[in-house]
Amino acid sequence: MPTLVMKFGGTSVANLDRIRRAAKRVGVEVAKGYDVIVIVSAMSGKTNELVGWVNETSPLHDAREYDAVVSSGENVTAGLMALTLQEMGVPARSWQGWQVPLKTNSAHSQARIEEIPPENINAKFAEGMKVAVVAGFQGISPEGRITTLGRGGSDTTAVAFAAAFEAERCDIYTDVDGVYTTDPRICEKARKLDKIAFEEMLELASLGAKVLQTRSVELAMRYKVKLRVLSSFEEQSDEAGTLVCDEEEIMESNVVAGVAYSRDEAKLTAVSVADRPGIAATIFGCLSDAGVNVDMIVQNISDDGRTDMTFSCPTDQVARAEVALGDYKEKGELNFAEVIADTEVAKVSVVGIGMRSQSGVAAKMFKVLSDEGINIKVITTSEIKISVLIERKYMELAVQALHDAFELEKA
Amino acid sequence: MPTLVMKFGGTSVANLDRIRRAAKRVGVEVAKGYDVIVIVSAMSGKTNELVGWVNETSPLHDAREYDAVVSSGENVTAGLMALTLQEMGVPARSWQGWQVPLKTNSAHSQARIEEIPPENINAKFAEGMKVAVVAGFQGISPEGRITTLGRGGSDTTAVAFAAAFEAERCDIYTDVDGVYTTDPRICEKARKLDKIAFEEMLELASLGAKVLQTRSVELAMRYKVKLRVLSSFEEQSDEAGTLVCDEEEIMESNVVAGVAYSRDEAKLTAVSVADRPGIAATIFGCLSDAGVNVDMIVQNISDDGRTDMTFSCPTDQVARAEVALGDYKEKGELNFAEVIADTEVAKVSVVGIGMRSQSGVAAKMFKVLSDEGINIKVITTSEIKISVLIERKYMELAVQALHDAFELEKA
Repeated sequence: MPTLVMKFGGTSVANLDRIRRAAKRVGVEVAKGYDVIVIVSAMSGKTNELVGWVNETSPLHDAREYDAVVSSGENVTAGLMALTLQEMGVPARSWQGWQVPLKTNSAHSQARIEEIPPENINAKFAEGMKVAVVAGFQGISPEGRITTLGRGGSDTTAVAFAAAFEAERCDIYTDVDGVYTTDPRICEKARKLDKIAFEEMLELASLGAKVLQTRSVELAMRYKVKLRVLSSFEEQSDEAGTLVCDEEEIMESNVVAGVAYSRDEAKLTAVSVADRPGIAATIFGCLSDAGVNVDMIVQNISDDGRTDMTFSCPTDQVARAEVALGDYKEKGELNFAEVIADTEVAKVSVVGIGMRSQSGVAAKMFKVLSDEGINIKVITTSEIKISVLIERKYMELAVQALHDAFELEKA
Repeated sequence: MPTLVMKFGGTSVANLDRIRRAAKRVGVEVAKGYDVIVIVSAMSGKTNELVGWVNETSPLHDAREYDAVVSSGENVTAGLMALTLQEMGVPARSWQGWQVPLKTNSAHSQARIEEIPPENINAKFAEGMKVAVVAGFQGISPEGRITTLGRGGSDTTAVAFAAAFEAERCDIYTDVDGVYTTDPRICEKARKLDKIAFEEMLELASLGAKVLQTRSVELAMRYKVKLRVLSSFEEQSDEAGTLVCDEEEIMESNVVAGVAYSRDEAKLTAVSVADRPGIAATIFGCLSDAGVNVDMIVQNISDDGRTDMTFSCPTDQVARAEVALGDYKEKGELNFAEVIADTEVAKVSVVGIGMRSQSGVAAKMFKVLSDEGINIKVITTSEIKISVLIERKYMELAVQALHDAFELEKA
């Protein structure tokens, strides 16, 4: 039998009615002849409640106990989903992470999947079971303790199962009906994509499009898992949603696939840094030790042996960055005049694998922004992405103008 | 190190504040030098919510999935209790049933404990851990599925751990401060007992005193586990609550230890049954097959080859009993005139190991009831118990009169 993995997020299993609706979708795939592995999240809101209790009990908690507590929500929905399927006449049973077993490393609360032996579940498929319902987000460490995979870990669970069981496809059911050219809330011309390449999805995911967890896309790309994002709230055909796949499967695509943005960015500049070998390593080592997630980096041309070093990071890490750099200065490990922070910036990016073969995308992007009177503060590029830092108040305008200029509303 | 088992029920872990209060009690025992095994229930109301979801999803549910769902509440409180203890500086960790492992048979939702290998937990005690927090009510079947032990199963879990670890004592923390001579809500002279014998507690528990699950008392008696019932809402000394123990440890005791009652009783009489060998087996086999829990049985003297057979059962099983007997009559397997049901009765019992050596208790009981003008409908006795069925409206009067007559308010 071909195998299909179907993942239902928290809003798709938020109550018994929604679990029934999800189970009906599973029933449709079973009727087509698939053996189905269903991955479920906890009911929406449940994991947040559990995390809240843990943090209130112990702010600097033992991550092993955190995992034991917060993994419980998925056990509930897995059992209820199995019961709902049985009630519909579909042979099903639930599996908790340790029962599969989904083996992870010991990095509690952020564990990495190491192995999913398919034998136990396949033995049940061979006995006539049609659906294995697996509690998402959780696994078991080499020490036999429960681990969790971090936020969005159920997406990663689903992709890992699809890889381990060589599934025909991994369908991610969520509360949106696919991946869009940009956020429909700020650009009404945003269009749902039928297909998007892994690399593009990865850039969009890490740039703030919250449809899929970045790790799940990485994993899908590595193991060539066909990933489909679709809504659990609409009747679905085989072509619904967005297929995330190898670029070879996308015959004709726009040069630019989508426009992404990130609102909570800040720009920091260490002014008049002594420009000597190893200075970048010192600065960014310092920031890394302080837990600051540095994104874009620009070093200005050196002038009289001194330079300005500019970088971006999330807004809520600005204070931490300033303290860390100040400490290094006091200890004499760094020499700079001052740190200037600009917290009123946003990042806007255009993403597309077509950029690899088509030049002029960057030039066009800069011209569009210039025509709108938007000043670019920092630029970074990768092979399939161009990102700019701009004043936050122009963010929506920039997204709309770029969406228009690259004609993303047209398929 | 001596080992102590402490069990906290649902109201004792109902929220983070109560978990902290319970953890402080655990800390007191750790400070005395005990290695402590803490058994926790789910937050009060949680298990009912989960059971409700399962029943709504699937009225005739797969008990294995029921167990997977309803066991999750205890996992949450176990983790939170461990975190609370750690926050207090007490080395602790949580264990779910399968991690211990608490091995049970495969009778899902009503599983029996088969073995609790102490090695895993003892290894951690040897490493310096002071408290093992164990999720109550759950275990693992030979097939590797999660099982639950039935309502009140956390009491049974606690006693089983006390037996497996040869604990000095098993303290059951609950919302009452001990076992009383009778229910204080209907008899204000009710007195808390300092000690009660296992056999007495067993009779009281099965007669409707809801302090301890019957199975946990049976288990404690078999393995000679000293069981103490006490309140988690009061400051406690070593002598607090009620100790349930071997009768040898109770030097001087009243002849009668307590008066129990059960409100939801019904009396049924099959009138004019053909009196032939095997007739009782047929009637009560029929009722057993129908799932009727028959309690008291009385057969009247035979007259002309016919007799009346009277028995009691819970009120909500009367209809089922009538239908079952009617079916047997139709099939020609039973011959009786009619079934008369009296649903306005209650059972009142006096219990005490002193009855074994002291005669006249029954006579005194009957005289007390007679003096109050209360008519006795059915009588049954055991070695340490006398139960009567009376009109329900006299139940409270009977309990009060018997409590007075046997001077239970005096130690």
